[in-house]
Amino acid sequence: MTTTTYAIAAPGAGQPLAPTTIERRDLRADDVLIDIAFAGICHSDIHQAREEWGGAIFPMVPGHEIAGVVAAVGVNVTKYQVGDRVGVGCMVDSCGECEYCLAGTEQFCAKGNVPTYNGVGFDGENTYGGYSRQVVVKDAFVCRIPEGIDLDVAAPLLCAGITTYSPLRQWGVGPGKKVAIVGFGGLGHMAVKLAAAMGAEVTVLSQSLKKQEDGLKLGAKDYFATSDESTFDSLRGRFDVILNTVSAKLPVDLYLGLLRVGGAMVNVGAPGEPLSYNAFSLLGGNKTLAGSMIGGIAETQEMLEFCAEHGIGAEVETISADQVNEAYERVANSDVRYRFVIDASTITA
Amino acid sequence: MTTTTYAIAAPGAGQPLAPTTIERRDLRADDVLIDIAFAGICHSDIHQAREEWGGAIFPMVPGHEIAGVVAAVGVNVTKYQVGDRVGVGCMVDSCGECEYCLAGTEQFCAKGNVPTYNGVGFDGENTYGGYSRQVVVKDAFVCRIPEGIDLDVAAPLLCAGITTYSPLRQWGVGPGKKVAIVGFGGLGHMAVKLAAAMGAEVTVLSQSLKKQEDGLKLGAKDYFATSDESTFDSLRGRFDVILNTVSAKLPVDLYLGLLRVGGAMVNVGAPGEPLSYNAFSLLGGNKTLAGSMIGGIAETQEMLEFCAEHGIGAEVETISADQVNEAYERVANSDVRYRFVIDASTITA
Repeated sequence: MTTTTYAIAAPGAGQPLAPTTIERRDLRADDVLIDIAFAGICHSDIHQAREEWGGAIFPMVPGHEIAGVVAAVGVNVTKYQVGDRVGVGCMVDSCGECEYCLAGTEQFCAKGNVPTYNGVGFDGENTYGGYSRQVVVKDAFVCRIPEGIDLDVAAPLLCAGITTYSPLRQWGVGPGKKVAIVGFGGLGHMAVKLAAAMGAEVTVLSQSLKKQEDGLKLGAKDYFATSDESTFDSLRGRFDVILNTVSAKLPVDLYLGLLRVGGAMVNVGAPGEPLSYNAFSLLGGNKTLAGSMIGGIAETQEMLEFCAEHGIGAEVETISADQVNEAYERVANSDVRYRFVIDASTITA
Repeated sequence: MTTTTYAIAAPGAGQPLAPTTIERRDLRADDVLIDIAFAGICHSDIHQAREEWGGAIFPMVPGHEIAGVVAAVGVNVTKYQVGDRVGVGCMVDSCGECEYCLAGTEQFCAKGNVPTYNGVGFDGENTYGGYSRQVVVKDAFVCRIPEGIDLDVAAPLLCAGITTYSPLRQWGVGPGKKVAIVGFGGLGHMAVKLAAAMGAEVTVLSQSLKKQEDGLKLGAKDYFATSDESTFDSLRGRFDVILNTVSAKLPVDLYLGLLRVGGAMVNVGAPGEPLSYNAFSLLGGNKTLAGSMIGGIAETQEMLEFCAEHGIGAEVETISADQVNEAYERVANSDVRYRFVIDASTITA
């Protein structure tokens, strides 16, 4: 038994997205049915819809930045009630039993987490994401969106928010720390807001100064262009943490040079091609190069509460379903300030 | 005023080392005069004597693994007395005032530490190392060698010991942790002893199984050959920490694959050529690639006490002064088990 709902899907690799209908499963005992209000467009949606990461499943309904309202709950669900404001991020299931699940890092589930879309559930069914009117998700993978954050600006928190919040927390960002955010797009602008709210001194390192005014407005103290070589001299040895949100290949050694002794550069963006570094760049100051991938469910809830407490949402541009293909082009060209969200009510046949 | 002492020096880049005499400064108020008993041969001595790291100062008296006995002290020295057993490592001075010195990480002194040899002191004088009968060192850069460690096996602790102890401590090696030591030479064999004494489960990853018996004897539970490709499959996701003591270019992604989620690979060896990695290798498990350079003076003292408590010294082969050039060849060919120490009493005209 299933329910039919409207969605926007990529029929095949690189093909334009188009309206369609998909089936959502009937509620299991621990399921939540969500009426989707907004779905963010993450750059990774585009990579996957274009099969740039390989192994894509079509038709594909992207979207893992979902905000909406509970429409129904399964018989065993006590955590949520109809009418609750909720969100869903990058995953919708995991084994729940391995050491990583038990540690609250479901993204690293030993059996593999079930991605919100472009994946296969433990029931063998393909998963379809948030570019849709409704979604059914196991309660343990649903987060509560606190009062005080509108659903449109909340949606991108479910991926862009947690992807930047988690490493900032892991690497001790807070008062007295100097943090550089590399890249000022969907992830970068969230990182600036979050790091500033954590009490750190925030610097943006962007290719140009085009968005400098926004960066300072959102909480950065400084904003430098990496296209200006003097940036790497003048900021040498300055930062405790560099959070790299850029998916392009960077001159890693130059960035490591901007770290203080004991500092860490954390990558949340992943270019397809290998990166190169000199071991002395790490040894010469007990420095660290790390990676971070989204965050666990409990940490995502914590991030949402942090955002509510500090009045943080994403900067969004709301679009209707028929603007999605144009929006993809603009994201690919870094022409968005700073996240597109699809108004799910516009998704129809 | 100075005192003349015997030494072994490289007259120029790559030239054979030969006996000579050098001048040691008269004792300043905070100086300690040490009768050197043993000086270890570190691979970096060879790199520097052959000017493979650039900018070498000749004649060069290498040696930064020094163990000996206090022969005299300056008028303000209260920490040491004549007859005390002491050691000197990789540095003999630092500014003492910068945040890094104040934090006990003198190796990262903002003004640059003064290396034990192949460097220039704050007085403008060249420094000469431990391949010598005597050395004069500021008391703050002299460590006490505890009773229970013979001076010959203590000497290599001052570089090989602290270089491996510091990252093992920094990265939380201890009971319940699985640690891989990459390379089983001068540094690697110390890392095995130290990590085992810290209570970790230790695995050696060496090119071949030639030294397997030694590895197990010194504390490793397992010993695998990296020349066998199945090693990288069978050990996938196994280690909390990988300490890489090898200075050759390694396939970094393969090694990162051996780490558990949240694991760290720490490099203490530095190949001259750049290394390459794929960002997904870090992101895919919140992994870390780090560097570590020797350790501070207080930490070196702590390491010596840890070694005394656990009955740890280096495995050494004692040589006389006239065997130094032959020893250099053997070290360059990885043909030493596991550290040469020069008996300083054999250093004469």
